[in-house]
Amino acid sequence: MKQRVEKIFALLDPKPDAVVLANAVDPHLDQSFFYLFEVPAGLFEGSVAVAHPDGELDVLSSPLEAETAFEAAKHDPHVKVHVVNRDETEDAVKQLLAPGGTYALNHRELTHGWFVQLEKLLPQVKWTDASDAIRKARATKEPHEIELLRKAAEIGSEVGREIPGLLKTGITELELAAEMEYRMGRHGASGRSFSTIVAFGPHGAEPHYSPRDTPLKPGDSIVCDFGAYYRRYASDITRSFHFGPRDAEMKEVHDTVFAAQEAALAAVRPGVPGKEVHNAALQVIDASRWKGRLNHGVGHSIGLVVHDGWGYGPKVEDPLEVGMAITVEPGIYLPGHGGVRIEDDIVVTPDGYEFLTTAPREYREVPA
Amino acid sequence: MKQRVEKIFALLDPKPDAVVLANAVDPHLDQSFFYLFEVPAGLFEGSVAVAHPDGELDVLSSPLEAETAFEAAKHDPHVKVHVVNRDETEDAVKQLLAPGGTYALNHRELTHGWFVQLEKLLPQVKWTDASDAIRKARATKEPHEIELLRKAAEIGSEVGREIPGLLKTGITELELAAEMEYRMGRHGASGRSFSTIVAFGPHGAEPHYSPRDTPLKPGDSIVCDFGAYYRRYASDITRSFHFGPRDAEMKEVHDTVFAAQEAALAAVRPGVPGKEVHNAALQVIDASRWKGRLNHGVGHSIGLVVHDGWGYGPKVEDPLEVGMAITVEPGIYLPGHGGVRIEDDIVVTPDGYEFLTTAPREYREVPA
Repeated sequence: MKQRVEKIFALLDPKPDAVVLANAVDPHLDQSFFYLFEVPAGLFEGSVAVAHPDGELDVLSSPLEAETAFEAAKHDPHVKVHVVNRDETEDAVKQLLAPGGTYALNHRELTHGWFVQLEKLLPQVKWTDASDAIRKARATKEPHEIELLRKAAEIGSEVGREIPGLLKTGITELELAAEMEYRMGRHGASGRSFSTIVAFGPHGAEPHYSPRDTPLKPGDSIVCDFGAYYRRYASDITRSFHFGPRDAEMKEVHDTVFAAQEAALAAVRPGVPGKEVHNAALQVIDASRWKGRLNHGVGHSIGLVVHDGWGYGPKVEDPLEVGMAITVEPGIYLPGHGGVRIEDDIVVTPDGYEFLTTAPREYREVPA
Repeated sequence: MKQRVEKIFALLDPKPDAVVLANAVDPHLDQSFFYLFEVPAGLFEGSVAVAHPDGELDVLSSPLEAETAFEAAKHDPHVKVHVVNRDETEDAVKQLLAPGGTYALNHRELTHGWFVQLEKLLPQVKWTDASDAIRKARATKEPHEIELLRKAAEIGSEVGREIPGLLKTGITELELAAEMEYRMGRHGASGRSFSTIVAFGPHGAEPHYSPRDTPLKPGDSIVCDFGAYYRRYASDITRSFHFGPRDAEMKEVHDTVFAAQEAALAAVRPGVPGKEVHNAALQVIDASRWKGRLNHGVGHSIGLVVHDGWGYGPKVEDPLEVGMAITVEPGIYLPGHGGVRIEDDIVVTPDGYEFLTTAPREYREVPA
């Protein structure tokens, strides 16, 4: 997409002759390839994109996905698709790049193997790194991207509203996760944006816990952290519930996390350093009797991947900008007992922020 | 796992002081990290593993997944987990590596960004590439890995048997894909091993087609290519069906692909170059009236990822070895009309091969 190529070049100084993005084998695909080449689906293993300063984009596609590639290119007059077999890729790259040119790569998403291959293929080329410019370009979303993120967030929110109806004694973490992912698919997701976390009782104390065969039992707290892909854009939402009977401490923990999230949200506006949003949540938690129980940064950017290149914790000076899509996700974790995390996706607006996720965040107790 | 570390070192000459695997941000995770550190779930973004020649493994884990990491390490006396925050990772790496040592990396799965960071961190170190040794070590599976692959394949097979019962006029490609993925989850998958392909009618002519809102209509051919993850191991199965009324040509196409797959399977045994398996299938197709309609290699290795580092087409001399798990997946693609592909997962045995997938492969017509 011309506008995005130009956005990246505007952030590069000095300007390279082109920006080169190269995919290896799944999962080692450069998601920025899909930022510039808006093909709604497809794997594109081994594909290469060459973005030129005038906004034009050359894409090498394998014959396996040629029709999908041509159809996407039909909608964009600035994209030219070349169909090449894997063993023709090197020659095709050579034809697109000048032997003595300066080309920028995306170090954050290129495999070192591809780099070594490119260096050998074009020994006279000067290679530079465009990854910061690419990350920055991707961080502030266009209205069209925000609509895709909103749709992904809405799919997650619908499932968030449905979870209470799925809770029953004996359902396992894995079964609940499968049910949630199925519902995301039925609501229009092309897949989950990351491995669904469902944590019952003490498991909720580990932020990146992975679901097992643990059955739900009365008195358990429940943390569900999940997200959908919609046309390659990700959502990321966490909802915490309680399976009755009430646990007075966990109710209070939930209310504290809710207050921490509200404080963080209130700090969100353009120009504010990321750490201020983090610290707003942290202060609420550290003023409670669960001081020290928040052990991670309060959020990160979302976009073509769920961790879209930027996160904010206590030391992050980078300011929020209009159009950034981020999560706000404080939590309190009590080893041996349980956890509560509340996570929403928002987009930074000139006045503050706007929610992308819409499911209720308040304490919700489901009777066992 | 000591045995796997030793398997990699046995393939390295000269021996480095250690093999270093480093994960970036999802999806840029080195799957070989999970080959050496058998942690059944978890993301481990930013984690590093250092494998020593004596089989010992140091793992740097973030606090977010510390419990999962410790629990996995409990089962393996040769793994030592160190919990470090992201900003402590560089110091921890420095403590594990000697400034003047020789360390091998996995170029195929390491980001170039990580490489640049390591080079700067340890400028005296000599970095070498272990990716071929790692690929080869991973290619021949242990009995325990084969059991995990078999379980992943069985989950795919169960869904393969269920697909005919899901076909009805009007169901869309995306709905069928969501239903298939849900069923994999219910049968015990931790997720899909790649984006499910469901292609109706003419869409089946594109091997890597991605499902859309296309409704199923009488007379459509159907290609379903999908797979499950079970404890990080992948399956990959394709089943093709016909939604009645019969299309005489597509019936014949199916029978031809079936015969091609049988011919390829008959060629499988240790020592046979990959190209011979490919060519056995190709000869059947090129002897039919659909000559030239197979446009991809007939298979690839499977393991911790669905494309596990090796594929075979008409030029591949590498021989099959006992313990290799591979797909056998010929197809015929008729632009504007449809396609048929049949894909099974097998493991190479001393005498030939054994099926991992078990769903029926024969022509199956479902009345509309």
